[in-house]
Amino acid sequence: MTDGRSDIDALIDLMARLPGLGPRSARRAVLQLIKKRGPMMRPLAEAMTRVAETARECLACGNIGSGDLCPICLDDKRAKGQICVVEDVADLWAMERGRAFAGRYHVLGGTLSALDDVGPEDLHIPKLLTRVGAEGVREVILALNATVEGQTTAHYIAEALEGTGVEVTSLAQGVPIGGELDYLDDGTISAALRARKAL
Amino acid sequence: MTDGRSDIDALIDLMARLPGLGPRSARRAVLQLIKKRGPMMRPLAEAMTRVAETARECLACGNIGSGDLCPICLDDKRAKGQICVVEDVADLWAMERGRAFAGRYHVLGGTLSALDDVGPEDLHIPKLLTRVGAEGVREVILALNATVEGQTTAHYIAEALEGTGVEVTSLAQGVPIGGELDYLDDGTISAALRARKAL
Repeated sequence: MTDGRSDIDALIDLMARLPGLGPRSARRAVLQLIKKRGPMMRPLAEAMTRVAETARECLACGNIGSGDLCPICLDDKRAKGQICVVEDVADLWAMERGRAFAGRYHVLGGTLSALDDVGPEDLHIPKLLTRVGAEGVREVILALNATVEGQTTAHYIAEALEGTGVEVTSLAQGVPIGGELDYLDDGTISAALRARKAL
Repeated sequence: MTDGRSDIDALIDLMARLPGLGPRSARRAVLQLIKKRGPMMRPLAEAMTRVAETARECLACGNIGSGDLCPICLDDKRAKGQICVVEDVADLWAMERGRAFAGRYHVLGGTLSALDDVGPEDLHIPKLLTRVGAEGVREVILALNATVEGQTTAHYIAEALEGTGVEVTSLAQGVPIGGELDYLDDGTISAALRARKAL
């Protein structure tokens, strides 16, 4: 690791492991970074070091923050009675970008999967059931992906909460805003038809 | 920049500026990095810091190394009589992966372009002409991209070297190894036909 090329090769190998980058795009990205050492590479390396040191999982909801509790769990303005359940942090971020939800979250860390041998105790499902009891939750909103695994997980949670008096809801399924029927799959169209509303 | 989320947002913004990554893939990459802080994020940040500190352009050929001269220019086993001219360092790396060339390189840093107002003095063309005289070069191999700009640049260099007694060659054009005729563009097929060889 003493000559410059092997340092660069090591950097390319690490970059190529990122999702969305392969060997070729990793090489392009590294060359770009080397060309812009001052304005890009140093700030990126510093930002990465900082996040690697500070980022940690929220003990309550599983979101990523820099303390024991994430900014959302620490925010008194967020309603305590509603918990939105998501598969992972990327989904939580997507919900937050929508700016439509003012409650709190619970990140499962995946979905149930018989094939991959993922059971409820491998996810944060027991923790969710504890929170629902402890925090006086009135509604659990299941914002899980519309995949087989997502829906299996949703049904499991709904059953586990049966009889607790907590309302369990899930995101509506239908035509996306701006969506064109001709480009939608048959499943979405029939779900939208079944859930049709009076104008 | 005190709470964890704004550090993470800053990191995502920097990552999204890399070629090949957009905002969505930058978010995915950063989440992946946070999940694998120990095995991935720290090594990546360290590799980046190291390269940012050590990488520099070779004073002779424009390749990237960690000293005044790059490993190729320092290697006595590389033939001094041949210079392979490439547009940028990525092309030099591609040539080296081919393991077919044992001479030295010259990185132009771009191509001539009337549209973008790039003239010979904006590239390392004067430096190339100086090297050809000073290093006793016998052959200049033009390994420029088969684009209009690449070919314009090739012709300019060939003309500038006319009368110096230096042989100027360029990479052969034809059907790529493993290439299927049905998938090739017309230009490649007619170039391969014009350059046909006796079996």
